Amino acid sequence: MKLLLRIRYNGAGFAGYQFQPDKRTVQGCLTEAFSRALGRQVSVTGCSRTDAGVHALGFVCAVEPVENIGEDWLKIPAGKFHRAAQRFLPNDIGISGEAISDDSFHPRYSVQSKTYIYKMYDSPAADPFLSGRAWQLKRPVSDEDINRINLCGERLIGRHDFTSFMAAGSKITDAVREIYSLSVSRETDGMISLKVTADGFLYNMVRIITGTLTEGQYSPEDITRILEEKDRRAAGKTAPPDGLYLYEVNYTPTPDWVLL
Amino acid sequence: MKLLLRIRYNGAGFAGYQFQPDKRTVQGCLTEAFSRALGRQVSVTGCSRTDAGVHALGFVCAVEPVENIGEDWLKIPAGKFHRAAQRFLPNDIGISGEAISDDSFHPRYSVQSKTYIYKMYDSPAADPFLSGRAWQLKRPVSDEDINRINLCGERLIGRHDFTSFMAAGSKITDAVREIYSLSVSRETDGMISLKVTADGFLYNMVRIITGTLTEGQYSPEDITRILEEKDRRAAGKTAPPDGLYLYEVNYTPTPDWVLL
Repeated sequence: MKLLLRIRYNGAGFAGYQFQPDKRTVQGCLTEAFSRALGRQVSVTGCSRTDAGVHALGFVCAVEPVENIGEDWLKIPAGKFHRAAQRFLPNDIGISGEAISDDSFHPRYSVQSKTYIYKMYDSPAADPFLSGRAWQLKRPVSDEDINRINLCGERLIGRHDFTSFMAAGSKITDAVREIYSLSVSRETDGMISLKVTADGFLYNMVRIITGTLTEGQYSPEDITRILEEKDRRAAGKTAPPDGLYLYEVNYTPTPDWVLL
Repeated sequence: MKLLLRIRYNGAGFAGYQFQPDKRTVQGCLTEAFSRALGRQVSVTGCSRTDAGVHALGFVCAVEPVENIGEDWLKIPAGKFHRAAQRFLPNDIGISGEAISDDSFHPRYSVQSKTYIYKMYDSPAADPFLSGRAWQLKRPVSDEDINRINLCGERLIGRHDFTSFMAAGSKITDAVREIYSLSVSRETDGMISLKVTADGFLYNMVRIITGTLTEGQYSPEDITRILEEKDRRAAGKTAPPDGLYLYEVNYTPTPDWVLL
């Protein structure tokens, strides 16, 4: 039996998700808080290793005791753990849901699809409330620009080799992924947001897609050519981590979430 | 001639607006940035002395050289200064407008009215993106609660002695102020916001009003009684600084703003 938690975190204050000695990491904070709340040492496995400065809204992690102490190790019913745990967490991490799974569930290997959102704004005035949370674009974005970006984005939907949209030097050998949906829209609050769902993502893939589609003045034909070149240098710049949010992680079957 | 600026700041990282030696203050950061941008020492006068942790969306300040160097000291046309100045400002302060005024304008003494907003949320899950930016209420707020709060708030509208809603120990002798409007509503994003406009505010007045109206289970008659007691102990608790935003400052005549 594993305890699953849905968490949100503001990545601005973390050196990324993954534990590193002497650095403030999300995994480090979760492991310490949950171990204290449960009164025993636990291990925490996350659905993704987000980079420094990257945020999460629907992150999923699994908690289990380090020592094998049998099936019914968790004495707290599902939906009650957050009350015990939230007070040991810093203000930039919040629990938003709980579930129980059997041992076969793995937050990373069991993933069916993931959705990321990338938030941008195009006002000339720097917004102190968006610092570290969105990317300020250099130029205003028109409705025509958004149309063009969406036409470009359509060329990325489907099953492709995304080598051109993977950080150079990445050790991955199979860069084939399937993008199920990708769209850019102007939100009611004036923000511009890119939303992309795929069966998996390569290193920096969403940030390179965002930088290419929004700052480059590419046509849809250019995007098809960039894909075919299978070379990172063919695509545009990597957008900064600030605007990137892991939005949702989907599993089949869906865990039986108790959402707050 | 004075240079007027409209600025926004996230108060979480500041020991308040007013300059204090060896502390990070908004006035300190503005004075340093504007002096560097203009190549001469300037003084910065703000419309309000917000407390540590309090935010501003439409703060107004006036900039003038410390030395009297004549009328046309500003060599940059209105609407162009922000480009020179923003790069000397930290990410938690942003310029959103510029204007030129004559010397008779004073950001504090010329104020006609001010509007504050106080942001709250009532979900049981702690939101890491609202930490330091809104007050998490202990209990869910129903539509009936919002109706009751608004009926209570109506008792505060008008010209009253607000001694009961002023921090104890405040040195102000005349606590009569006029509240022009006060309302609480549920926003489309789920936040609860209290908006209040008055000719002036006493120390902690908005925070005491917010704490009293939202956490106390008072009736409109209770509010009238609290006002009449003219005693801080009659009102409820002081809400934390996190949710408080100086929203707008009104002057007559309105400065000729170039807004970004």
